[in-house]
Amino acid sequence: MEKMKLKLLYSDLKPELEMIEKELEQAVDSESLLLNDASLHLLQAGGKRIRPVFVLLAGKFGEYNIDVMKQVAVPLELIHMASLVHDDVIDDSEIRRGKPTVKSQWNNSVAMYTGDFILARALERITEVKSPRVHEILSKTLIEVCRGEIIQIEDKYKLDQNLRDYLRRIKRKTALLISSSCELGALVSGTDEKTAAHLRRFGYFIGMSFQIIDDILDFTSTDEELGKPAGSDFIQGNITLPILCARNDSAIYAMLKANLKKELTNDERLEIVSTIRNSSGIEEAKTMSERYLQKALRELSFLPKGQGVKTMRKIAFFIGKRNF
Amino acid sequence: MEKMKLKLLYSDLKPELEMIEKELEQAVDSESLLLNDASLHLLQAGGKRIRPVFVLLAGKFGEYNIDVMKQVAVPLELIHMASLVHDDVIDDSEIRRGKPTVKSQWNNSVAMYTGDFILARALERITEVKSPRVHEILSKTLIEVCRGEIIQIEDKYKLDQNLRDYLRRIKRKTALLISSSCELGALVSGTDEKTAAHLRRFGYFIGMSFQIIDDILDFTSTDEELGKPAGSDFIQGNITLPILCARNDSAIYAMLKANLKKELTNDERLEIVSTIRNSSGIEEAKTMSERYLQKALRELSFLPKGQGVKTMRKIAFFIGKRNF
Repeated sequence: MEKMKLKLLYSDLKPELEMIEKELEQAVDSESLLLNDASLHLLQAGGKRIRPVFVLLAGKFGEYNIDVMKQVAVPLELIHMASLVHDDVIDDSEIRRGKPTVKSQWNNSVAMYTGDFILARALERITEVKSPRVHEILSKTLIEVCRGEIIQIEDKYKLDQNLRDYLRRIKRKTALLISSSCELGALVSGTDEKTAAHLRRFGYFIGMSFQIIDDILDFTSTDEELGKPAGSDFIQGNITLPILCARNDSAIYAMLKANLKKELTNDERLEIVSTIRNSSGIEEAKTMSERYLQKALRELSFLPKGQGVKTMRKIAFFIGKRNF
Repeated sequence: MEKMKLKLLYSDLKPELEMIEKELEQAVDSESLLLNDASLHLLQAGGKRIRPVFVLLAGKFGEYNIDVMKQVAVPLELIHMASLVHDDVIDDSEIRRGKPTVKSQWNNSVAMYTGDFILARALERITEVKSPRVHEILSKTLIEVCRGEIIQIEDKYKLDQNLRDYLRRIKRKTALLISSSCELGALVSGTDEKTAAHLRRFGYFIGMSFQIIDDILDFTSTDEELGKPAGSDFIQGNITLPILCARNDSAIYAMLKANLKKELTNDERLEIVSTIRNSSGIEEAKTMSERYLQKALRELSFLPKGQGVKTMRKIAFFIGKRNF
């Protein structure tokens, strides 16, 4: 539903996105039945394809050539997919976007190697790009994403972590890949350095905002809307911004502490979700997300007006207004 | 012990290998304590560093410049390390080279992400290399290694697989990375195409021989010599060449079938190991390994005589004579 509404915003890009979708399918094609099944399962679970969208939009600021744009859009989405399937192992997730995860449909080993395989495919695509700088940005992004996941393991179940820990985590988990999508889209279409830098920062801020909202929705949406149980983050030990804000209330802190790492019944889970939802943590988190959104919009103001800025602004606003 | 003997063979390379060792340490350095611990644990578990050795030796056929050579030697060894730590997850291995594996000392998630991180570091190093062809060979190798691991999962516990399944598996698991080490060492040192092709094939054949011998040693060595329980391959469901040969004896076939996927006592394990060791399967596997070794030596005969060929021949003979 929400995915459909977002797609309307970039309906101009429909033919290009369909082309990218086909390339993604080709990219994960292999001789191995198991690998094909697992990869297609992952691909068909969909997703917003937000990274390819940002690559394409950033390309509108330079010399837009879809054959060049897709050379970075496809591997970036593949890197994202690979990270999702590995995340599910880390978080022991059974369900994502309403479908069983690869690790739950098969097992952890298959999930690990499906991720490895998709990553390898991404690299293969990257070699088609002839710019050393593009390679460098991509591998640095990858390293930060991986390092972020290790930090995610280290920070798990740590109720007393600080805001900086959280921000560092979502930067690596989400913001960097979106930031690189914008930057690379700009670079491969030959924009000047200043434009590429503004787009990189736009992507970074919008990515931060986006992830904070995702973390809010984990408490404010229903299981159906999420396609997975609400409160999954807390159950998996991921201490997100709404929790970090809500824990300032000592009664909530005690309740959270008591339920950390516990095997919860469904009622207990819903109780925790509702406590957080009704706490001031949600509003505080929304404020912070809004602040990043404004920073993102500010970057757009430095760019030449046109279709690119217009659509990016719309997407930014949409992200800011996702139903809470 | 065996590792020490092998190291004597390439003592000429000692200073360069020490330099590479330091670079490997630097490469896995990160801000994360957990990641540092896990990576260093893996690094210190050692290994024969056979891939860097082949890169360096192949470089002797061209313009040997250690600063250029190490640009491919380091990432190739890192790719190998990353694949080892992921293998341990697939195979559920508790011990490797006499030390607990990352997945046993920490857990599967940490092993998965340590592997991802090391791989990302490898990619970072690769970006320093300015040749698109080198990138392409590396990512293709990576894809085949990953695909090989998926096939390894698919082929597990299949006692009725054929020889081709096995050969395809060890090609992707071992031979390709050694083959690429030789080819890339040649290419970055600027040898002609013919030399690089002979070295690539040499690496391929020696890699096949090497892996077959490894698979034989899993049955013919003691737990102490192996640094892990003998017969681990069979216990983990990996059907290797000695088994494929031995199963032609119907009594052995029935015994293997009965013990497949079973929780084995120590005595039962040792019984299986001894049955295979005393079967004709060992000799048949040795013959096949020897055949690959001869093919490898034949490739060397096409290359200009010199220190490179001399040392490669010595290593090839050493591999052929590893104590059974």
